[in-house]
Parts: sequence; C-alpha cells; structure tokens
Amino acid sequence: MGKKKTTFNISKSENFSEWYSEILNKAEIVDLRYGVKGFVVIRPWGARIIDKMYKIYESALRCTGHEAAIFPAVIPEKNFKRESSHVDGFAPEVFWLDKKQGDEKLALRPTSETAFYEMYNLWIRSYRDLPMKIYQRANVFRNETKATRPLIRSREFHWIESHDAFATKKDAEAQVQDDIVMTEEVMHKIFGVPFLPMKRPQWDKFPGAEYTIGSDSILPDGKVIQQPSTHLISQHFVKAFDVKFVDEREKEKTPWLTCYGPCMSRILASVISVHGDDNGLVLPYTISPVQVVVVPFYSEESKKVREMVEKIQKDLLGEHIDVRVDNSGKRPGEKFFHWEMKGVPFRIEIGEKELESGEVIVFIRDTREKISVRIDDLAESIKNLGAEYDSRLLARADDSFKSKIVDCKDKVSIKKALKLGKIVKFSFCSVENDGAKCAEFVEKELEARVMGIRADIEEKASGKCVICGEKSNVIIYAGKSY
Amino acid sequence: MGKKKTTFNISKSENFSEWYSEILNKAEIVDLRYGVKGFVVIRPWGARIIDKMYKIYESALRCTGHEAAIFPAVIPEKNFKRESSHVDGFAPEVFWLDKKQGDEKLALRPTSETAFYEMYNLWIRSYRDLPMKIYQRANVFRNETKATRPLIRSREFHWIESHDAFATKKDAEAQVQDDIVMTEEVMHKIFGVPFLPMKRPQWDKFPGAEYTIGSDSILPDGKVIQQPSTHLISQHFVKAFDVKFVDEREKEKTPWLTCYGPCMSRILASVISVHGDDNGLVLPYTISPVQVVVVPFYSEESKKVREMVEKIQKDLLGEHIDVRVDNSGKRPGEKFFHWEMKGVPFRIEIGEKELESGEVIVFIRDTREKISVRIDDLAESIKNLGAEYDSRLLARADDSFKSKIVDCKDKVSIKKALKLGKIVKFSFCSVENDGAKCAEFVEKELEARVMGIRADIEEKASGKCVICGEKSNVIIYAGKSY
Repeated sequence: MGKKKTTFNISKSENFSEWYSEILNKAEIVDLRYGVKGFVVIRPWGARIIDKMYKIYESALRCTGHEAAIFPAVIPEKNFKRESSHVDGFAPEVFWLDKKQGDEKLALRPTSETAFYEMYNLWIRSYRDLPMKIYQRANVFRNETKATRPLIRSREFHWIESHDAFATKKDAEAQVQDDIVMTEEVMHKIFGVPFLPMKRPQWDKFPGAEYTIGSDSILPDGKVIQQPSTHLISQHFVKAFDVKFVDEREKEKTPWLTCYGPCMSRILASVISVHGDDNGLVLPYTISPVQVVVVPFYSEESKKVREMVEKIQKDLLGEHIDVRVDNSGKRPGEKFFHWEMKGVPFRIEIGEKELESGEVIVFIRDTREKISVRIDDLAESIKNLGAEYDSRLLARADDSFKSKIVDCKDKVSIKKALKLGKIVKFSFCSVENDGAKCAEFVEKELEARVMGIRADIEEKASGKCVICGEKSNVIIYAGKSY
Repeated sequence: MGKKKTTFNISKSENFSEWYSEILNKAEIVDLRYGVKGFVVIRPWGARIIDKMYKIYESALRCTGHEAAIFPAVIPEKNFKRESSHVDGFAPEVFWLDKKQGDEKLALRPTSETAFYEMYNLWIRSYRDLPMKIYQRANVFRNETKATRPLIRSREFHWIESHDAFATKKDAEAQVQDDIVMTEEVMHKIFGVPFLPMKRPQWDKFPGAEYTIGSDSILPDGKVIQQPSTHLISQHFVKAFDVKFVDEREKEKTPWLTCYGPCMSRILASVISVHGDDNGLVLPYTISPVQVVVVPFYSEESKKVREMVEKIQKDLLGEHIDVRVDNSGKRPGEKFFHWEMKGVPFRIEIGEKELESGEVIVFIRDTREKISVRIDDLAESIKNLGAEYDSRLLARADDSFKSKIVDCKDKVSIKKALKLGKIVKFSFCSVENDGAKCAEFVEKELEARVMGIRADIEEKASGKCVICGEKSNVIIYAGKSY
C-alpha cells in the first residue's frame, strides 16, 4: 500500500541504535510489538538463521563428546536455593510461578545448574561415569531490571547450556579451555564475530563459580557485548548438591564441574551488528537461510528461461546450496532491495541474453560487485565464492575489531578512547577482590566496565595502576556496556 | 556394582504399565526423579530420538510451505482472555507467573493461538499475505489435574504448533485435511504409529475451534492416546483478535485459521509402546539415534580387526548411517543386552573369523535373526535391511491395530470388547450437542470416551443408537482413556 521504500539509508557508523532497530524490522528478524517488555517474536527470517546457528553449535558439541538432554523449564525453590551465592546472584532476576496446590514454589529457569546438578547427584556414581558432558538447547528467563534491547538483553532468550563433570580439576580446566576454543571455532571462524576471551575479575564471576571466562565482542557504538562464557564451578556449589563419585581406588571424591552457555539469540545480535552495512543485513554465507536468490527476467513468456531457472535451482539444491527463486510480481528493483536488505550473499540475474551467452550475472552482497559466471560451473563457483565471501567478512570484522582496542597510559586517554567507541587496555592494581574499589571508579567516573584480563595470552604488567597509582599486577580491558 | 541384570522379562502384553515405566528407566529415555510432579528429565537417548523426530516433522512442514518462528513463552492475561471458550477451556490448566512490577499478569503458554493471533492482527493486511503458514517448535505447560504419566501426560511437553491463515474457509478446510495427511505420512508411515483420524464430537472440540480432528492411537493396555490434532478455528476466535484482510476487490474480510499440534514427547510414548517388546525398546530404523552398533571381538590385540572396524565405521558414516562402535570394557553379553534394550535395529559382530570369511554377522533386533552380510556391501545392505525393517514394524503395528477395532451391536458386547482392550465402534444418536447425554452414559457406565466419527471415510449409520435407542445418525468410536 503506497510507495515502497527502495533505499535504507541509515548510517550504521553514525547512528547505530536507530540502524539496529530499523534493520531488525526491515529485514524481518524480530517484531517488537508483542506487548510484553523484553519478550519479542522472532520472525521466520531470524528463526531460520538461529536454527542454522544451533545446528552448527550442536554439531560442534557432539563432536567433542557432548550429548543432548531436555531438562524441565522449572526449578523447585529448594534446589534453586541450595547454593547461597547462586541464589543471591540470580534472585532479583527470577520469574516465579504462582504456586499450585501440592507444588512447592517453582522458578522459571534463569540457567540450569541447579536442575542438572540435582540429577548429576543421581547419575554420577563412579569414575566410570566421568567425564559426563551433557547440554541442552533451551529457552531461559531473566527478569532484566535494566532497559531491554531485542536479542541483546531480553527477558527470554534462546541458548545452549552445557554442564560437564570431570574427575579432576585439571580435566575441568582443560574443558574451560576447550569451551574457549569452541567459541573461537564456531562464533569467530564460522559466524565471523571477533571477541576477546576475558577472565572476569573476582567480583564479576558467575554466581557459584570459582572463575568465569567471558568472551567479549563489541558493537559499532563501542558498547561491549558479552558472548558465550564458561565457568569453573566452585566445589562449594558441587558439594551443596552432594555430587560425589568413587575413584579407581574406591575413594569417595567430589567431581569438578564446568558450564558453558552460547546464546544463539544474542550471537545473532552480534552477527547482524558486525557484518551489516548501510544497505541492510550482510549474512555469512554459511548461516544465511537463503544463500543464493535467483531473479529471472522474462522479456515475454519465455519457456527457455523458465527451464533454465529450474535447472539452476535443481543443480544448486543438489549441492546443498539454499537457493530461492523470486517469482513474485514485484519489480526487479524491489526484489533487489528486498534480498539485499535480508543479507542474502548472492543474487543471480538471468534472462534471454544469459541463455545465449551461457553465463549469468552474480551480484555479490558485501562488495556489491557483479561478476559473470558460467552456468555449467554454477554450483561449484557458488561454493568457492561462498568460502571467499565468509573469509572476506571475517577479515573485515577482525580488522575493525583490532582497530578498536587501544592501549592507554592515563585516565585522560582512557576517557578519550572510550568516547571514540574503543575498548581500552591499561595497567591495573588487581582483579582479586581488592581491586573492586578501582573497578568502581572505572564504572562511576569513566562510565566503563572492567572486562578482566586476557585468558588466551599472558600479558605482563609493569608500573602502576592507572586508577589508584598502586603497584600494577595486571593488564585489564574495559569498555562501555549496556 | 553388584550383578548386572541381563534380562528384562516384563511382559508388555500382560503388564503394560510396569513394562512402560521400567523401559523408560532401563533404556534411559527419561528420569522420573526430578522431584516436581509431571516434569521429567528427558535423557540423552530420549532426547536424540525426539531430535530426529523433530527434524523429520519440521522438514515435512517446510515442504508444505510452512516457516518456523519463535514466539515468547509467556502470554499476557488480556490476550489470553480475549476469546471466552478458549480461556474457559484452558483456565484450570494455566500456570501463571508471579506478577512483576510493571507487567500485567502473564500466563505460561498452554498453547499459542493467542500469541500468534496477536501478531497475525499486525502481519495480515492483504490477500497477498495469505496463506500465512507459520509454526514453532516449543515447550508448553499445562497444570494437569489428573495423574500424570511420563511423556503421555506431563505438565511440560515438547511439540510443534503450526498456525495457518487462509483467505477462504475452503482453503482452511483443505489445510485441515493436509494436516491429517501429514500425520499419516510422518507419524504413521515413518514412525510406524497407526491411528484413526476422528472428528471430535461438538462437546469435545478444542476450546475456540469450529471443529477438531484428533488422531487416536492405542496403547497395549487398550487405552486410547490422542496424537496430533488439527482444528478449524472459529470465526469468533479470529474476530476476537480482529484479524482482517483486504481481498482483491478491496473488500475487508476475516481470514480462516487452522492449527495443528504434533507433540514429539507424546508421539515418542506411542513409538515406544507400539514397537517395543519383552526385551526392551524396538526403534524404527529411521529415528534410532544409533542405527548400527558394532561389537568387535578381540581374541587378542588384533590390529587387523581394529582396522576393519574402523573401515566399517567410516563406510557406514559416509553413507549417513548412524553407527557406534562399542569398545567398552563390558562382556559381550552385557553389550548385547544394553543395545537390545535401547532398541538399536542392527548389531554387527566382528572378530578374526569374520575377517577371513569377508562376512559379518548382523543381528536384527525385531526378529532376533542373525544373518551373514558381505563386508564389501555392508552400507548398501544395511540401507536395504533398514527399509525392510521399518516396513516390517509398520505392518506388524497395523495388523495389531486393526485387530483392536471391534464392531459392536449392544452395550454388553461394548463392555466385553473394552475389557479386552479394544476400541469399539457402534451406532450412536448424534455428535452434535444433543448427543452429549449418551456420551455421558458411555463415560460413566461403560468407562469409555467417545472419540468421534471417522474423518477420513464416510461411514453410513443405520438403525438405532446403541445407548438411547433413538435414531442413529452416526457411527462412533469409543475407547478407554487415561
């Protein structure tokens, strides 16, 4: 009804917030009009991307010895309350159900440690049962008290949580490292989202963990977004659920537990923000619901063109390429706009002329180039172009990410860098509890959050803490956060 | 720990209830010890079957033009209450959330019509938007007041719900028929679960539907279990959400809506009950998490056998056959018991002798036959055996199902047949509201539920209602129910 807008024209770099809201709407990723704060409807285009992401993540988990299970979405109050720091950490965020006759009070899971451990108490008996590596794909619920942002901070989100149990601390710590490797292999290498693995300061670890390693990415407005984190669970937590096993020498021991939580809906927010441009979404080839769209031009009712389009569709599908033919009644310009907005990597244009030449025009979404490709080699060419496409997206994202990390020597340069949307690194006194005061200063005066220290490399500290002037023990990273 | 039990030995036909509980436990399908009534943990073996079932169902939905979406798990009270029969029907079963500041009262979805229609009001504008066919895979919640049974009647279950909108009643009714075809193609033909498509009596339709067609299967103890049902939604319901569209002639119209709800966790209950035997689970080849288990015999540290096992594994995986090698330290007898209990269709036994002959022994779970298969043709043979296996399971299930449907002429024969665990069919006055009284008699005096009339074929009524003696208008089916 009325004129169709055929340009988008919001600058991602200048007005990220508007760009993000508008693109979620225009590319039909989510609908914000459901009417309950922090609960959004994920529309088919968004749901299909998330489904592809889930499949890749679940396959990576299975390859590393994890099995899927399905746990209840409710957790009885008494289980939830068994570990005090956990309950204190989550209490304000928990949705409780109205009590039903015969039930004790039930929480809607904000995370499922207390559901899994209740069963690990029963399932883990002997060293032969270890390692136990179980995950679930699940919706979880948190009553966010801050402002919510679609996919970034919602009251219901869609994630995977894996809960692993090991005989030794060494094995468990190796799993924490493996979790970081999985984030690197899947979220970075496949989805193209760069991140820093950060060991969180003591005051910012997961409630009930001995330590937490988060992976921090950044949005175009300079805000840091926490992606999958992995935790070494404290022995206190494990003991609260009385999880024990008998070792080879018949001695009773406490296993070491880890957990890892990649959130598909939130990673999608990063995918959209990192790769998108002023023309709309740009989706990695691997996770785009439609990888190739074919736009046929019929100068008249051309049987030959139609047959060729069908042949191309069949060839590409046969090679497991997700292809869609746009036979809608729209004008070509509208079709182009639609599929560019949706971030489809390749558009094939085909008409009478192409039939004669045996070559089609392939439009490439990110570079906006048009190239000619022989119809006979189309599937093979698309696969190669797809691999190049994803490498290009990744390289571009990495370059941009690197340029956003800035070494700072004093508060003035920190402030300046933060204002420019950067992540800052600087010398700091301590990430143990005695550094909390300086972190508070960073939070209040510099309006940034201390992300922690690098978990992947060792960075030597020297000199003084930029905040308090005491001896510096660590190099920390900090950034603006939501 | 102690002696391993290597037999199962509960008779499915004589003691189904104990058999079912025990098999869920022994085959590690679900764990009932979570501690909240009606909420169970679905263990990895069960979760993997459900995952395969979901994939097949979702693929069937996509092939018929459906797209996936992800809706919130909560529904605001005011939306939930928009249609009176719907709210009356579900009210006793709804879990409500404790009210949070700023929120209105929120229901945990028992089903999502009122979530979808809220958005269809916004998404459907013109005839060009129709048909709209959207589904979601979701957990839903119902506070069952009757006794719960794992997978059969739980307070949380895992299903697919599709909600489709059409321009005409004719199109919508065609969809209802297509839904029955999908139940037939997927649940019956692939999962091997026979059913009768039954048009429900008026007093037993879905709250808010014009009519409901359920698909009824039967458990070995003669209890009828309702599987996927499909509904033509009443125009009153659609109007309550003010869903409208403008047709080709610019006239405002009300679309016709249908919904369809195949429940994976409940279908799994039927799969287990229909195919299982006194030795444990028997899973259809298509949905078994492990399709082939290889049990190697090492008379000594035989490098050759190991290499052959690896080759077999690679060959089968290459042909997308789910194969697992059991290299555990258990005795062969224990391994056999374990995988038979889990319902794996084929077991390959391989040792030195087989290397020499070039043939392996394949044990077939349902017939308990052992056959020799050439190693060179193994993948091809397994695929053929798998197809035969599933046909055999289906034929056996169909034969058994047919034998359980009995024509009855009077109350005495109805009672007798019900006692023998049959579904009865007999002449009945009416499935409109004026038949409700006779249905009540059936419920109270015969302890059976009126399932309705056949939706797939027309069955001519003649003579008198077996219950009240008035003119018979319909042939109905009835059975014992949970």
